Amino acid sequence: MARNKNPEETMHLIVDTAYRLFMEQGYEHTSIQDIIGQLGGLSKGAIYHHFKSKEDILIAVIDKMTAESNQLLADIRDRVDLNGREKLKAIFKYSINRPVQNEIFAVAPNFKNNSKLLFGILSDTVDEVAPHYILPILRQGMADGSIQAEYPEQLAELIILVANVWINPMIFGGSVEESCRRFRVFDQMMRGFGLDIIDEEMFKRLKELTEIYQKSK
Amino acid sequence: MARNKNPEETMHLIVDTAYRLFMEQGYEHTSIQDIIGQLGGLSKGAIYHHFKSKEDILIAVIDKMTAESNQLLADIRDRVDLNGREKLKAIFKYSINRPVQNEIFAVAPNFKNNSKLLFGILSDTVDEVAPHYILPILRQGMADGSIQAEYPEQLAELIILVANVWINPMIFGGSVEESCRRFRVFDQMMRGFGLDIIDEEMFKRLKELTEIYQKSK
Repeated sequence: MARNKNPEETMHLIVDTAYRLFMEQGYEHTSIQDIIGQLGGLSKGAIYHHFKSKEDILIAVIDKMTAESNQLLADIRDRVDLNGREKLKAIFKYSINRPVQNEIFAVAPNFKNNSKLLFGILSDTVDEVAPHYILPILRQGMADGSIQAEYPEQLAELIILVANVWINPMIFGGSVEESCRRFRVFDQMMRGFGLDIIDEEMFKRLKELTEIYQKSK
Repeated sequence: MARNKNPEETMHLIVDTAYRLFMEQGYEHTSIQDIIGQLGGLSKGAIYHHFKSKEDILIAVIDKMTAESNQLLADIRDRVDLNGREKLKAIFKYSINRPVQNEIFAVAPNFKNNSKLLFGILSDTVDEVAPHYILPILRQGMADGSIQAEYPEQLAELIILVANVWINPMIFGGSVEESCRRFRVFDQMMRGFGLDIIDEEMFKRLKELTEIYQKSK
């Protein structure tokens, strides 16, 4: 690799390479040495100049994936052909249907060993996704009459925190059966708020993702 | 301090001393040196023999507090004068009413800087509190007719996770007003599951705790 590549380009190369290796062989089974081996002559020192640890690289990989996922949420939020409730349903449907989810679930890191990572997901969920994607959709639903909410900011937080963290089989683990039951209870919770948006297709897809994740362990 | 104290006694002494100092001056403002200064001649090496860092001492302090809190939950779970729903209500009422909560909220560590600690709370909530305290109470309620639940294991997890983590002003922060709104949405969620157990006294107490916490920042 040429020495005069700019730092940003080097970081992109590291993150893209790590992403591919994590996807191919799993986070736990990829060493920093593996990543270096694919960088065409970049030194260990050059990597450590940008990232302090493998966990730091993972955080950058997750940031990249989060940015892609947030783009999908923005696209749905900004559609003009759906009411608020339909958008909320679309958010869930498209989020779990993305094909990249299969890869993510197949190589998922063990969150129990990565508390920083877990904290990153919690922060992103509460500080980014809830106020910038879910809340505007709830507000639109309140305006068009398709959603009722007394405290939309807090409801947005609760919904997306429960969906992203509690239902996520990568975080709380358990059997396929347990994951499915969590999703059923989530559905009950949503109905309690008058939000009947989970359908059987989503149940099937979540079951499929949990099975992929279980097989990878 | 005598050299021949047994290791367990030494650990208790360190944890009790740290607990007192954290309570008096706050976690963030207590150094390992402060703790050593109160241990009557125990060396820095002796502390590091038992604990790798101040965060490790904090985890031991939290474990001790968790054990005390779990004893309270066990006492309520094992009462014979209440039905399931009354026990669930009692759990919330007594948990937030304990006077020690004032001290905890006054000196609370910043969870945003302690992802290990946050993970400890998540794990304790899902692996200990949900199955051993909340679930038996839900099952009793299902048997005595005071609670309806299709998936009690998962409902127990959701309830206590939302209560311990999302509503906890020490974890997600925000203003007193925001905390109170979270508690209102939690109440709505519980009602959605047919569990009308939050009362105005609990709202007032949670507001009080949040104010104590805010003042300490």
